[in-house]
Amino acid sequence: MTTMKEVAKEAKVSLGSVSNVINNKPVRPETKRKVEAAIEKLNYEKNDLASGFKTNRTKTIGLIIPTVWHPFFSQIAFYVEKYLLEDGYKLLLCNSNGNAGSELQYIQLLRQNMIDGIIAITYSDIEMYINSKLPFVSIDRIFSTNVNFVASKNYEGGRLAGKTLVDKGSKNLIFIGSHNKFVNATMDRRKGFVSFCKENNINYEVIDLLEPYQGLDLEIKKAFAKNPKIDGIFALNDFLGLDIIKILEEIDRYPIRDYQIIGFDGIKLSFERDYVISTIAQPISGIARKSVEILLKNIEDENHKENAYLPVDFKDGGTTW
Amino acid sequence: MTTMKEVAKEAKVSLGSVSNVINNKPVRPETKRKVEAAIEKLNYEKNDLASGFKTNRTKTIGLIIPTVWHPFFSQIAFYVEKYLLEDGYKLLLCNSNGNAGSELQYIQLLRQNMIDGIIAITYSDIEMYINSKLPFVSIDRIFSTNVNFVASKNYEGGRLAGKTLVDKGSKNLIFIGSHNKFVNATMDRRKGFVSFCKENNINYEVIDLLEPYQGLDLEIKKAFAKNPKIDGIFALNDFLGLDIIKILEEIDRYPIRDYQIIGFDGIKLSFERDYVISTIAQPISGIARKSVEILLKNIEDENHKENAYLPVDFKDGGTTW
Repeated sequence: MTTMKEVAKEAKVSLGSVSNVINNKPVRPETKRKVEAAIEKLNYEKNDLASGFKTNRTKTIGLIIPTVWHPFFSQIAFYVEKYLLEDGYKLLLCNSNGNAGSELQYIQLLRQNMIDGIIAITYSDIEMYINSKLPFVSIDRIFSTNVNFVASKNYEGGRLAGKTLVDKGSKNLIFIGSHNKFVNATMDRRKGFVSFCKENNINYEVIDLLEPYQGLDLEIKKAFAKNPKIDGIFALNDFLGLDIIKILEEIDRYPIRDYQIIGFDGIKLSFERDYVISTIAQPISGIARKSVEILLKNIEDENHKENAYLPVDFKDGGTTW
Repeated sequence: MTTMKEVAKEAKVSLGSVSNVINNKPVRPETKRKVEAAIEKLNYEKNDLASGFKTNRTKTIGLIIPTVWHPFFSQIAFYVEKYLLEDGYKLLLCNSNGNAGSELQYIQLLRQNMIDGIIAITYSDIEMYINSKLPFVSIDRIFSTNVNFVASKNYEGGRLAGKTLVDKGSKNLIFIGSHNKFVNATMDRRKGFVSFCKENNINYEVIDLLEPYQGLDLEIKKAFAKNPKIDGIFALNDFLGLDIIKILEEIDRYPIRDYQIIGFDGIKLSFERDYVISTIAQPISGIARKSVEILLKNIEDENHKENAYLPVDFKDGGTTW
């Protein structure tokens, strides 16, 4: 990032004059011309330069999520806005639809100094965030310790799902999920589940399809045909759990009567409503609070790096014994 | 709102000088002093004055909703952001929690020229919006034709709910809902339903509690004890419909087997999922599109006033015959 000093040197004017031009304060026309020529030559926008000034902060944060029309992401947005407001910050909402182009637009906003930082749940390539050197926190997806992130303890959550099913009486377990080609934290759910089953000599099976997938219903029906004793299901997430319940109704199997099922995420339709399925609940309010906290530190100190793994909990949503 | 003309007259300078001062362009110190004194005397912030300039637009809109953590409001937020983006506008999200103080904060932002207009779903007193004379569109709550609003045809929706239940075979209907002391559009749902039943000599009952209420479950059980033939329910909204299904399970009554039920709103957990209950669906995407359209017109022309009532539709969510 070009500094004001470099501009002053190029324009052969004082640092104060550069600052005055950038901030639209009155300066002699000749000085203005020189500074603007230097800025143009160094190929930097005014706003790039201005972004170093505390006074230019907009106290606005961009939240990039795949879609706010989803109870997990809307709950994240709800709490991020709440905690930002406590610190006098506002939230600019971006539904990326998993579209890297939309995400890029918001990063450009940030560069133009219209927002002070970004919190993102992104499943696309985020090299662009990392390279931007701008305040940024990733939720859910983990890269390296060089990138700020907040995630749940997915591995422990997978173990907890297996343990809870067994403790409540299931004897034959199955994990049902999917994964994509990017490494992401949700894969640890399956790994934790499998490690628990192996250590405890529990019968288990795994259905784990590569996204985008088709024919999940056939896979599930096949697994139950082969092993009708399956009585405990761990679904990768709550939405998938709801889908599995519907698929199993078609072969006359019902939760509680025939099996128990645990999802992952902890989805509620709104604050005051119940969980939609028994679940390993992510601490969504805590994730939001921690993300805001880390981002604000990163805004104050561009070198601030912090990673946080938060603990998960089992919550009864009426689909476990 | 004070005009630049009034400031120029007070300061005894040209209109151009006032504009230059407001926009931080170089002016003689004496001129600057005079203009600033006039602004102070007239008790107006620079930003109030500046808000008339197209160049000062932030291309950012405030969306005020009770909470984004609710599938109806999150769907509204999803589509409002989508349509704003098509016009190059961004969305600042405010969860008011029904708190007039939070709403006021956002109106102040607007006055400080940090956002260009507001779209709000508010159930508190909105005199403050009306008096602010700033670009504003109300969703769902209808005031006078002096305030821009977009709402669904609630009365027709109530009639459609009654008609659909009867067409599909119900003989004994009941409306179950609640209302608050403010007049709002949702009351028309009951009125439409009742008018349909009366016109067609349908047996019907009404439970309509004053908010905040308690003991809905007792009222419902009492109604079914008194009239066990009830086989068609119209719930004020989808969430209430889901609650009613749970309450009736406690007296061993199940949808489809014993009765059918229709809610109102058209809630889906996310874009790709099914309706959570059979419903009179509001055209949420259309409401968002129309609200954005009206607001952008209002930003261009402060006198623009427009009201729109959009049609609703029945959607099968698996709880009707």
